Amino acid sequence: MAQRTALIVSAHSADFVWRAGGAIALHAKRGIAATVICLSYGERGESAKLWRQDGMTPDRVKSERRKEAEGAARALGVSDIQFWDLGDYPIALPDEALFRLADVYRALHPSFVLTHSKEDPYNHDHPLVSEFTQHARIVAQAHGHKPGEKVLGAPPVFLFEPHQPEQCRWMPNVLLDITAVWEKKREAIECMAGQEHLWDYYTRVAQQRGVQASRNSDKKITYGEAYEAVFPHVVEDLVP
Amino acid sequence: MAQRTALIVSAHSADFVWRAGGAIALHAKRGIAATVICLSYGERGESAKLWRQDGMTPDRVKSERRKEAEGAARALGVSDIQFWDLGDYPIALPDEALFRLADVYRALHPSFVLTHSKEDPYNHDHPLVSEFTQHARIVAQAHGHKPGEKVLGAPPVFLFEPHQPEQCRWMPNVLLDITAVWEKKREAIECMAGQEHLWDYYTRVAQQRGVQASRNSDKKITYGEAYEAVFPHVVEDLVP
Amino acid sequence: MAQRTALIVSAHSADFVWRAGGAIALHAKRGIAATVICLSYGERGESAKLWRQDGMTPDRVKSERRKEAEGAARALGVSDIQFWDLGDYPIALPDEALFRLADVYRALHPSFVLTHSKEDPYNHDHPLVSEFTQHARIVAQAHGHKPGEKVLGAPPVFLFEPHQPEQCRWMPNVLLDITAVWEKKREAIECMAGQEHLWDYYTRVAQQRGVQASRNSDKKITYGEAYEAVFPHVVEDLVP
Amino acid sequence: MAQRTALIVSAHSADFVWRAGGAIALHAKRGIAATVICLSYGERGESAKLWRQDGMTPDRVKSERRKEAEGAARALGVSDIQFWDLGDYPIALPDEALFRLADVYRALHPSFVLTHSKEDPYNHDHPLVSEFTQHARIVAQAHGHKPGEKVLGAPPVFLFEPHQPEQCRWMPNVLLDITAVWEKKREAIECMAGQEHLWDYYTRVAQQRGVQASRNSDKKITYGEAYEAVFPHVVEDLVP
Amino acid sequence: MAQRTALIVSAHSADFVWRAGGAIALHAKRGIAATVICLSYGERGESAKLWRQDGMTPDRVKSERRKEAEGAARALGVSDIQFWDLGDYPIALPDEALFRLADVYRALHPSFVLTHSKEDPYNHDHPLVSEFTQHARIVAQAHGHKPGEKVLGAPPVFLFEPHQPEQCRWMPNVLLDITAVWEKKREAIECMAGQEHLWDYYTRVAQQRGVQASRNSDKKITYGEAYEAVFPHVVEDLVP
Amino acid sequence: MAQRTALIVSAHSADFVWRAGGAIALHAKRGIAATVICLSYGERGESAKLWRQDGMTPDRVKSERRKEAEGAARALGVSDIQFWDLGDYPIALPDEALFRLADVYRALHPSFVLTHSKEDPYNHDHPLVSEFTQHARIVAQAHGHKPGEKVLGAPPVFLFEPHQPEQCRWMPNVLLDITAVWEKKREAIECMAGQEHLWDYYTRVAQQRGVQASRNSDKKITYGEAYEAVFPHVVEDLVP
Repeated sequence: MAQRTALIVSAHSADFVWRAGGAIALHAKRGIAATVICLSYGERGESAKLWRQDGMTPDRVKSERRKEAEGAARALGVSDIQFWDLGDYPIALPDEALFRLADVYRALHPSFVLTHSKEDPYNHDHPLVSEFTQHARIVAQAHGHKPGEKVLGAPPVFLFEPHQPEQCRWMPNVLLDITAVWEKKREAIECMAGQEHLWDYYTRVAQQRGVQASRNSDKKITYGEAYEAVFPHVVEDLVP
Repeated sequence: MAQRTALIVSAHSADFVWRAGGAIALHAKRGIAATVICLSYGERGESAKLWRQDGMTPDRVKSERRKEAEGAARALGVSDIQFWDLGDYPIALPDEALFRLADVYRALHPSFVLTHSKEDPYNHDHPLVSEFTQHARIVAQAHGHKPGEKVLGAPPVFLFEPHQPEQCRWMPNVLLDITAVWEKKREAIECMAGQEHLWDYYTRVAQQRGVQASRNSDKKITYGEAYEAVFPHVVEDLVP
Repeated sequence: MAQRTALIVSAHSADFVWRAGGAIALHAKRGIAATVICLSYGERGESAKLWRQDGMTPDRVKSERRKEAEGAARALGVSDIQFWDLGDYPIALPDEALFRLADVYRALHPSFVLTHSKEDPYNHDHPLVSEFTQHARIVAQAHGHKPGEKVLGAPPVFLFEPHQPEQCRWMPNVLLDITAVWEKKREAIECMAGQEHLWDYYTRVAQQRGVQASRNSDKKITYGEAYEAVFPHVVEDLVP
Repeated sequence: MAQRTALIVSAHSADFVWRAGGAIALHAKRGIAATVICLSYGERGESAKLWRQDGMTPDRVKSERRKEAEGAARALGVSDIQFWDLGDYPIALPDEALFRLADVYRALHPSFVLTHSKEDPYNHDHPLVSEFTQHARIVAQAHGHKPGEKVLGAPPVFLFEPHQPEQCRWMPNVLLDITAVWEKKREAIECMAGQEHLWDYYTRVAQQRGVQASRNSDKKITYGEAYEAVFPHVVEDLVP
Repeated sequence: MAQRTALIVSAHSADFVWRAGGAIALHAKRGIAATVICLSYGERGESAKLWRQDGMTPDRVKSERRKEAEGAARALGVSDIQFWDLGDYPIALPDEALFRLADVYRALHPSFVLTHSKEDPYNHDHPLVSEFTQHARIVAQAHGHKPGEKVLGAPPVFLFEPHQPEQCRWMPNVLLDITAVWEKKREAIECMAGQEHLWDYYTRVAQQRGVQASRNSDKKITYGEAYEAVFPHVVEDLVP
Repeated sequence: MAQRTALIVSAHSADFVWRAGGAIALHAKRGIAATVICLSYGERGESAKLWRQDGMTPDRVKSERRKEAEGAARALGVSDIQFWDLGDYPIALPDEALFRLADVYRALHPSFVLTHSKEDPYNHDHPLVSEFTQHARIVAQAHGHKPGEKVLGAPPVFLFEPHQPEQCRWMPNVLLDITAVWEKKREAIECMAGQEHLWDYYTRVAQQRGVQASRNSDKKITYGEAYEAVFPHVVEDLVP
């Protein structure tokens, strides 16, 4: 049987950690190889602490951010992490990048896809990346795109939790139990030295989603991650 | 292991057939016993053909409707069908009925619950029954309701497809493959002699939802049923 | 050919004037007879000016309000105005009133129905009346309700403009040109002596909706009334 | 009197058939000339069956698609069909195309406009074309665009039914009776040899919308097409 | 100058603590006297821990719950706490209670009102209480209700945070800085011995809302409470 | 203390007058200096009357529009008005303009920001400008954008009232009392000689919003302006 995979598209190099670290580690444990695409380093807009250091340059910020992300990826068991360095605030997403991502879809045939929410009044890059990721998925489904290649099927897409969820009109309709891999996610979080102020914020997010996951099931769940599914779930039965 | 069960709450005695017949037959096949509560016979509002017969009376309508529903229930493999005869157009849902339904929840501890959509500008009873069914679920979860009994957990609730889905602002976010039991559902549909004009309508609904289920998965699905999940799915992984 | 009719259901005795006076006068001119049901006089909640008079009593308020409404009805060419005196703030809408309104539907077979918006955070009676009016329509459609009578068809329902439209999440999707009958509407408005502070407010509403109607067509329209259609328009062509 | 016209803007060369074939044929019968703009052939993303043939090339796909669309246009009585060949998956909509479409608006002064839904998570081109079509309409209304020409008025815009309507948050608020021209629409549908799997799907769509149109009126309607009106209806009366 | 007041309407006797404890303590500190109405004790549905004790009875649960709420009220500086004992799961809200609450509005003329969210699929009492509280406000505004009394003005209404905010479609559009009174809120929370599992959950809620309040201002805020304003803010300027 | 400022971003050179003239004059009176950026003159799409004059050219339209806007700015007490001449119908908003606007944010550190609504089916430029204005705000908040400069904080953004508010799904949740400066706003309005048909329309808008502001407060307000706040209000108390 072919290697099963997951595709995570992260606008900036830290997003996949806060927002999808649990899902990555959980599926890695089950043999599903995660490919993480960091479209930019977030060097302009998400590196405040680094910029407060003397003599900082864009290249040094990128290099620090890359190291952090690679450390986190290791902690989570990511199979492949790619840095496309497309800039941020604003991110640039030309057709060339679109087709490159379509190629990744075709190469992986991922079992599922994770990316950003559709709206975010605090962040201009995140919704662009959400649309871009879904657009590339559609291109990869087109029979006339690089005819002869095996076209992409219909992998589900889950949108990860934004920083201020209600303001982004994001609706969590999937709650994932990440209790078993929480230690790994926290370890990955602690790799993000430049954004230490978020460590506890996202730990509390995991705790709140854990409590909510318990309330929506009959299970004991301590840590959770929430997602918004874009497409209907196609199921064989209705038993949870 | 205890018998697994499902609870279906139907405003009128035919609703469970058109809207959830596939789910009932499918789970019956897998040993999950369905209890169907027909809160009314739909004798006033959903029996036009019967009322066109000479000398029709409310009691004869009810009796005909009951026979049809029992026939359909047999075709689908329903374990228990109950007729509460609460009237229709409008339906009456007093607290006594609420507590009776809470008792059913406590007796069954169903794995999932099916009922009507939250809105329906064409039907006043359906949204009332949706709210009533969810309300009884909450009462059954209360530790102070009949203390000493085992309280209900958190079974998921799925809202079945209304007659004109968009007008009801109902969003199908779960598509169930019912291809394997389609023949049973069609057989049950054909038990509804009084509403023959709906047979083909709901057959086409099943075909359209089947096509859509295929498009949202990589599976070949011919017949489907669509549902709107009320609560987030609590999951162990994101692989479909 | 049978007399064509329209049914207007007004929570309080002045609502039909501000909100639907133009539609009533316009259709009256074309031979469509309007029946206006004033479910209450609005004696408690919409008669501030009267209550500021010395020695005012509920009966005197009702009597004044009735006189005003009858004057307005005459100005608009209303065929039949009924006062059901069901109280206000809160209005009482028992099943007896529901069946009485269903009888009106069956007696009139109206070409269209006008009533209040579905939401109104400033007014508790209006949304109740909206639901009540639509509920009675559904009862009148039921073959088992007073079998033998001709059942109601599917007259469109239009929701009239609330006082603060956006706050009521009311969406004007029909703009009616009332320029030809504006004088009559203004005359009717001026019958409402107890709410003189609203005369100019609703004149401006008519002017704004007139400008908007012009902008959404290629016509010169000076005064308009806006409505939210509840059901889809069933049409023979798409030419406006 | 000037020739009355309609403008249909179709992202790919088959969309106008499935989604608006009935409206086109119906108005053609009444002397309203339809101009159909096929912005692309859908050669990459909507020609799976053709790409399964040996030795297929983009040009051959386009040529086949064009032949199919021309055949369908003949069956429907389209007056003018144009192929702008702007590519698909993704479609390219530069300002030059925008002004070209504005010119079409100015040349035709259409009585109404048909195009795609505002959202579609399954198709990236459709929402772009919807926005593009509405944008060009606004440019054609600008007095400073090619001053001296007669500016466009305010033709209504109707959005046609997407493949999975609820997922596109598309709300059908206009139901058009196409029973009288159904045979022509089916004939046009059968011209689309490359998408035979959709023939019955869209036949069932027409049947379901027909039943719904009957339910929302007092007419016998067998086949229907559903649309979402973008702007309020400006009307002279409220009688359906 | 008259004593300024605030009115908090709590479905169950603990709700005001988790959801509005900070607002109460903060305004108390500034001399605004809070009246808290606990419509029920939450004895059936929100006292799981108490019901697990041997020999528990409804009266003992109520008595325990009352003691806890009184302790919390003291910690927060509540001026008046009332227990109306209307039952829960389901709560009973007859007209008598409605007029009693209208009397409270008239007696207090509160500067603002706090109550529950409009929707809550996990709790049937909360939305009922939200509607009830707003309904009583409207009755208290009616000049014909107890004529001669000074009618209520237009105090703003803020809806407090439900347990699972997104699922309740509740939108936090007001963030209140409660850092200065956090210790009092935590002390009040710790009075709720029967729901110790919620202590840390609501501490984390306060921390998350604090971080968000900082992000939406240029202030350092550690603890926050979020509210949804029902009505537009009427302001003298736009400077925050 | 530094000069306090406000930033108003207007798609066309007249928008700031109709939509925000009151806010500008009111804050000017209080010493808050308004900078108005007119991104275009609206020379193509919003100058119908000028284009009806013989021999009109784009440059003459721009020059007239500029004079009008400068006159209005003087009447309102605007501190700085800039004309960026970016074209209209469609407006062009390249990255260069984005960074220029980010520079304005950094130079002003405005107390609040005013711009257009997020949607407008009648106007393609307005929503683009809304997104552009918010995007530039986010860029100005980025520490890596021109490192060394003081980054922007979190000024609130208010969206001003579009021409047909409900059709733009714009929700007025802030009502500003502009009674004290109404004369100035009317004077500014009368500077817009090219759009005289809008003078009374926007006067009536101010009157309606004034009445609504009164109804939502206990104040006497004659003229108002309505806004939609994008972000939650961060407050120190809940007293209006």
